[in-house]
Amino acid sequence: MLAKLYGVGVGPGKTEFLTLKAVKTLQQVDYILTPTAGENKNSTALLVVKEIITEQQQIKLLNFKMSKSVHIQQQVRKKAAAEIYHLLSQGKSCAFITIGDPLFYSTFNYLVELIKSRDPELLVETIPGITAISACTAANNLPLAAGKENTAILSKVKNKKQLSAVFKLFETVVILKLSQNFKQTYQFLSQAEFNYQLLLGSRVGLAEEFFSQNLSEIAAGEIQYLSLLIIKKIS
Amino acid sequence: MLAKLYGVGVGPGKTEFLTLKAVKTLQQVDYILTPTAGENKNSTALLVVKEIITEQQQIKLLNFKMSKSVHIQQQVRKKAAAEIYHLLSQGKSCAFITIGDPLFYSTFNYLVELIKSRDPELLVETIPGITAISACTAANNLPLAAGKENTAILSKVKNKKQLSAVFKLFETVVILKLSQNFKQTYQFLSQAEFNYQLLLGSRVGLAEEFFSQNLSEIAAGEIQYLSLLIIKKIS
Repeated sequence: MLAKLYGVGVGPGKTEFLTLKAVKTLQQVDYILTPTAGENKNSTALLVVKEIITEQQQIKLLNFKMSKSVHIQQQVRKKAAAEIYHLLSQGKSCAFITIGDPLFYSTFNYLVELIKSRDPELLVETIPGITAISACTAANNLPLAAGKENTAILSKVKNKKQLSAVFKLFETVVILKLSQNFKQTYQFLSQAEFNYQLLLGSRVGLAEEFFSQNLSEIAAGEIQYLSLLIIKKIS
Repeated sequence: MLAKLYGVGVGPGKTEFLTLKAVKTLQQVDYILTPTAGENKNSTALLVVKEIITEQQQIKLLNFKMSKSVHIQQQVRKKAAAEIYHLLSQGKSCAFITIGDPLFYSTFNYLVELIKSRDPELLVETIPGITAISACTAANNLPLAAGKENTAILSKVKNKKQLSAVFKLFETVVILKLSQNFKQTYQFLSQAEFNYQLLLGSRVGLAEEFFSQNLSEIAAGEIQYLSLLIIKKIS
């Protein structure tokens, strides 16, 4: 029988956003597994937890090389899943750490699916984490939504027609993965026929954290990886 | 000058979902302010924090009597804001605790607005919290969304046309305040021409926590206050 796999959300980037449950879990497992964006790259999630883990915990970096190729992505995930499976089958409990929340746009899902395809009996426990959206609004005291307002979260902006339909239905729209989605969003917003306030959160919680509420300023700069944009319609 | 007002998200209902920052803040303030649904009612948020607060902290219940009347709601909020203002103006630091996240469909926003209208210089700090959505998906290891999927969060279900438009645009739809929104949602889903999986989370994190993935079972029971429904389209 396999040992247990924990998916631990470590929040957006500050140790203080860890939950008590995340701390307890990370201090109990045999292995902390952390994704990196490539060989010799730092792990953001590891920086968040390094203060609280003890000498008992082994750390294992898993190389999640960034690639647009679906084939390479699959290969990378398969390799990581095999490495995790190997540890679990040796009876080692493992915590896979992800920034934000493990079930909200993270790679944890893919790993669980791949390991379950080897052993459907895999024991999994997910520890929720603070999302970058919550941390971004908190840092700016901006209500994301209240009362009867509806909220849209877009990971993929397709075209103007889609954005137009979304803004007709929702009072608040959050655009994730902004570096990929900014061009279309900017074109739409700069021609929008409604009033709005906005908030860019870039690398929220990390040392280079940056916020802006000015569309021109945002457009003039480079949109960093790990950026999101919150747009609230004003009636 | 007023003392500082903290809005502290305590997560959906378990002490273990508190963040390190929430714990630290709650143990430092003079007053813990907690909403109740009426006189002599328990405070859910207070139950979550009672293990971690110390004898130094004063506790103050604020009566947020539930009412459909906008006028009564406003009166209740004004009275609570006046009580908080009184403490702040005496130099007492205050933490207003809310289940979930203070900026995601909570009453914290209204209080801040009301107190700021008395003193625009009010110092506010928001501490984000785990939402019921994250806790609900975590308890069931259900990926809310991944990759290029988009997510809709509805606090108000209007009609079939709205739901139809939302499900055309989004892969995942979360319905909050389900006790108010279930009737229309059920009518829509029971006639839907697409496949979906669903997850009801009712009073997530609390003693009476209940989950169901079966629409008929959900429809046969009573929808509790503090319930949400996650619907994921299956292609």
